[in-house]
Amino acid sequence: MNTIELRDLKLLFDWLDLNGVLKRDRYASHTPDDIEAVLELVRRIAEQEVAPCARASDLQEPQLTPEGDVTVLPAAADAVRVIADSGLFGAPFDFDAGGLQLPLTVYTAALATLMSANISVPSFMLLTVANARLIKAFASPAQVEAFALPQIEGKTLGTMCLSEPQAGSALSDIRTRAVEEGEDELGRRFRIKGSKMWISAGDHNVTDNIIHLVLAKVADEEGRTVPGTKGISLFIVPKILPDGARNDVAVSGLNHKLGYRGIPNCALNFGDGSATPGGAPGAIGWLVGEPGQGLPQMFHMMNEARVSVGVGAAALACRGYSLSLDYARQRPQGRPIGVRDGDPVPIIQHADVRAMLLTQKAYAYGGLALALYSARLQDEELTAPNAADREAAASLLALLTPVTKTFPSEMTQQSLHHAIQIHGGAGYTRDFEVEQLYRDNRLNPIHEGTTGIHGMDLVGRKLRKDGGKALALLKARVATTIAEARAIPAQQTSAAQLEKAWTQVTEAAASLMAEPDETAAQAQATSFLFGFGHAVVGWLWLDLAVACERKGAADDSADKSLLRGHVLAARHFLETELPRIPAWLAPLAGGTPAFVDIREDEF
Amino acid sequence: MNTIELRDLKLLFDWLDLNGVLKRDRYASHTPDDIEAVLELVRRIAEQEVAPCARASDLQEPQLTPEGDVTVLPAAADAVRVIADSGLFGAPFDFDAGGLQLPLTVYTAALATLMSANISVPSFMLLTVANARLIKAFASPAQVEAFALPQIEGKTLGTMCLSEPQAGSALSDIRTRAVEEGEDELGRRFRIKGSKMWISAGDHNVTDNIIHLVLAKVADEEGRTVPGTKGISLFIVPKILPDGARNDVAVSGLNHKLGYRGIPNCALNFGDGSATPGGAPGAIGWLVGEPGQGLPQMFHMMNEARVSVGVGAAALACRGYSLSLDYARQRPQGRPIGVRDGDPVPIIQHADVRAMLLTQKAYAYGGLALALYSARLQDEELTAPNAADREAAASLLALLTPVTKTFPSEMTQQSLHHAIQIHGGAGYTRDFEVEQLYRDNRLNPIHEGTTGIHGMDLVGRKLRKDGGKALALLKARVATTIAEARAIPAQQTSAAQLEKAWTQVTEAAASLMAEPDETAAQAQATSFLFGFGHAVVGWLWLDLAVACERKGAADDSADKSLLRGHVLAARHFLETELPRIPAWLAPLAGGTPAFVDIREDEF
Repeated sequence: MNTIELRDLKLLFDWLDLNGVLKRDRYASHTPDDIEAVLELVRRIAEQEVAPCARASDLQEPQLTPEGDVTVLPAAADAVRVIADSGLFGAPFDFDAGGLQLPLTVYTAALATLMSANISVPSFMLLTVANARLIKAFASPAQVEAFALPQIEGKTLGTMCLSEPQAGSALSDIRTRAVEEGEDELGRRFRIKGSKMWISAGDHNVTDNIIHLVLAKVADEEGRTVPGTKGISLFIVPKILPDGARNDVAVSGLNHKLGYRGIPNCALNFGDGSATPGGAPGAIGWLVGEPGQGLPQMFHMMNEARVSVGVGAAALACRGYSLSLDYARQRPQGRPIGVRDGDPVPIIQHADVRAMLLTQKAYAYGGLALALYSARLQDEELTAPNAADREAAASLLALLTPVTKTFPSEMTQQSLHHAIQIHGGAGYTRDFEVEQLYRDNRLNPIHEGTTGIHGMDLVGRKLRKDGGKALALLKARVATTIAEARAIPAQQTSAAQLEKAWTQVTEAAASLMAEPDETAAQAQATSFLFGFGHAVVGWLWLDLAVACERKGAADDSADKSLLRGHVLAARHFLETELPRIPAWLAPLAGGTPAFVDIREDEF
Repeated sequence: MNTIELRDLKLLFDWLDLNGVLKRDRYASHTPDDIEAVLELVRRIAEQEVAPCARASDLQEPQLTPEGDVTVLPAAADAVRVIADSGLFGAPFDFDAGGLQLPLTVYTAALATLMSANISVPSFMLLTVANARLIKAFASPAQVEAFALPQIEGKTLGTMCLSEPQAGSALSDIRTRAVEEGEDELGRRFRIKGSKMWISAGDHNVTDNIIHLVLAKVADEEGRTVPGTKGISLFIVPKILPDGARNDVAVSGLNHKLGYRGIPNCALNFGDGSATPGGAPGAIGWLVGEPGQGLPQMFHMMNEARVSVGVGAAALACRGYSLSLDYARQRPQGRPIGVRDGDPVPIIQHADVRAMLLTQKAYAYGGLALALYSARLQDEELTAPNAADREAAASLLALLTPVTKTFPSEMTQQSLHHAIQIHGGAGYTRDFEVEQLYRDNRLNPIHEGTTGIHGMDLVGRKLRKDGGKALALLKARVATTIAEARAIPAQQTSAAQLEKAWTQVTEAAASLMAEPDETAAQAQATSFLFGFGHAVVGWLWLDLAVACERKGAADDSADKSLLRGHVLAARHFLETELPRIPAWLAPLAGGTPAFVDIREDEF
């Protein structure tokens, strides 16, 4: 009961037709039983290794030793190693790259299961997998062998070094510089100097070596760089160089966070002279691919990282739901309305608590469905037999990524607000886990692009790309779901609710796309993202409800309370959450909003 | 800049016609200059004594010594003593009770100022004031002299002991027992036995003595008690008895909280034999008033305590707004839409940040306006020349109390969510104060009645009382504001928006009041409370905007950017927040909600 339950994952897999994916060439060597065995193993690791150190890894934060090394809680380091030893780091990689070649849908479900147990521990894995996938996609065979393979095998962990103290959301302003030094069997070699900030797993004692992927600007002999994002290149900078020497990478500080404390978050100095590899200061790094390609390369991985943030947030919501459900079933307090005598009843009998629980469930499993749907689109992009389907999947995935990142991040926070509320005063103490989950998740709306940045991505890029092709595709899928729901008497009201919501969102999207003033369009972006996100998740809930209704009708042996629970969570989302959409779209209908009109001195 | 600014308080005082209140007999000895001097003193204490220990009182939590005593951070204890020495504990009390006889509006503003600096420190005061007011209202002259006066003078602090481990929201289930022992000059004397939970300032080393007000059930010779809330009585139980002996009150544990850590929160045992006053175990306490009156007596104070929770939440929102505004003005990041070159601009120039800032302001000062409006109603109830006005004020105050408690509590959490978001990654670290504010405020939707309990209070009691008289009164005031706004061209759109919102809320209220099935009505209560709360604060914002418009037109020397800032915050609330109301009222329009239909095994 600690982690996401297998029965819930299997329900979602059926809905996503995972068995259909398993028939494709790429995945044909895995049977459904194999997949279940993988998830069973993951669940065991989650419950036996990852969950038990959750509280301790919060209380005993990573430490910076006087020698400048970072140490993490031994039990957390052990848990990372157990995951690595299980081979799971290789899950999404090809057999011939030493991987397990599992569907991304399955890898994502495994990640969610581990994250619901303790979000920090599997975060070491997800950074490493993303790092190795990026090297695999863009680096030379020699670089892949030297730097990606040890990560796929779980022997070395990886990082992503993007942000700098003065450049967080705006990467075009990074100041880290790379000066070319020569070429060797690993490619064009540079000396790198600069400060990086907010580096998760930037240093630790889980593995001996760490592979940093670093964004920096190539400087010519006069120190000049190409301005803007076009000047950004990507470098592989290992903590320990292939010759065994220590690279010039130093931890300048640890960030002390509200939550998510099991994984160290570092400020790193590259090239500050703390080491002199090859007899000189300057961190040694090898260029990946061509100069100036750093940002597009990184964005290849960012979509994956962004989906992972959504996965983690959904996992925390699932965990929080499970905890407050248990508490509500056990805690006696008060009596039904109008009853004054007799024993107190469990609080799950009170309407207010039930409403909070069902909202928690609708956010948690709605977020998980969205994350797995995105992973399923990745599988589709990779394996669909015809090109049009692969293109459609890529297009939808790009459009949905801002939602997959932000809906779970923001809604999980509201969900965990309810989890604390159901626990009452107890939920406000550190004796109950919901308190930690609430702190852990608060990072999710910030890292890998804030909610505001994703609003700009959606409205400024994704919506308008190819003349709105992706939105048209999405609308067609929504229409299919609505038609299917209409054929089921019990789903007709929900179908009408979803149709209404999509009419509202479609009109708002059209108005945004037609807005000639980009600044005016962008002023509505975050708000639109919330409305659009709710419409997307409403669609997924209805689609899942249709699948549950059909399964319940077709299969007498099905778990009826599981199916009806999902159907009711869907109805709850549609009847209580879709009515929120007009408020998010309201600014689009009026004139210039007050927040645009107000002068700085008037705040 | 650390605390709520005087210019903002003065604007609100003008809006509330505080000068009119000062002309009433009760307050006639205070001039407007006196009031300003009091607030100036309070601001100085807040900035020089209360704010500086805010972080330390979070990091160095109260400790339970091996001897069973609780110690708090010395700087926090000193800050409480400085407030006590200033005479402020006596602010709301009559001159002849040793008080300052200040308007409650002024006392509430002072409390808000102190709470914006560090919520824990003035919480010692507010509990003490509430305790002394309760004794003053219901106890005998001898009890007042022995137990209220030392609190009014700030020599002794007080507590409220209501909850028990098994009885939080449901006080009818308390198990603490009182057995009559005799009578003395302090009244009917009892021996009290039982465990109390969640007792703020339950023990500490700020003052030598502590006056506990304890709810317990009087047991007859066979140990029988009157069932339900009618069996509850109120007792005064001092830590140190008048003869100097230690009473039988022991700390059984400290709660370790998410935030609000500067004030100890204790589990207390009464009568567990840790001391034997008068040669026997059992905590000695004196009955206040008549037996069985405990709950009505306590509720006399609870309304005040509930308004104080709203005050504290609004104060935290004001503080968070001030911090993120400073940060947004100083932090350079990114460029305006379409600009790629040149220096990064302060993030206050980005639309998304501006929207979050203005939402923060609308919640913060909307909450503060609501809290001060409630305090002003208390003054009106106390001093209005004619009985009808006094009755109307009492009636409105009772109706608004659930909103005054919950709107700031819940909306401040959203406001501080934005404050962290504006700080980005920095806001997620313990290096920035918004992280602490976010943890501190999370208690506010829980203590003094959860949000759900206040929904039930509003829908089950307040709305229907006297045939809906209070709501009718409120609607008349709202109509006056709408008419006044209509007379100002720039406020006509806002007036129409508010009218629409009140039509929606009025219809929903009528449907709730007409609902014959109490369980069905109560199922909508929390949701209705949110919708109603937004309509109330929308009204206050429009009313305040009208006052600002008038002042701006009448007085050329007025601070125009202050006035326009409030007018724009009002417009922002009306155009972006009122559209949220229909979603909160939506369940009222449909059939049985899913959260009522769902069976326990289906969650």
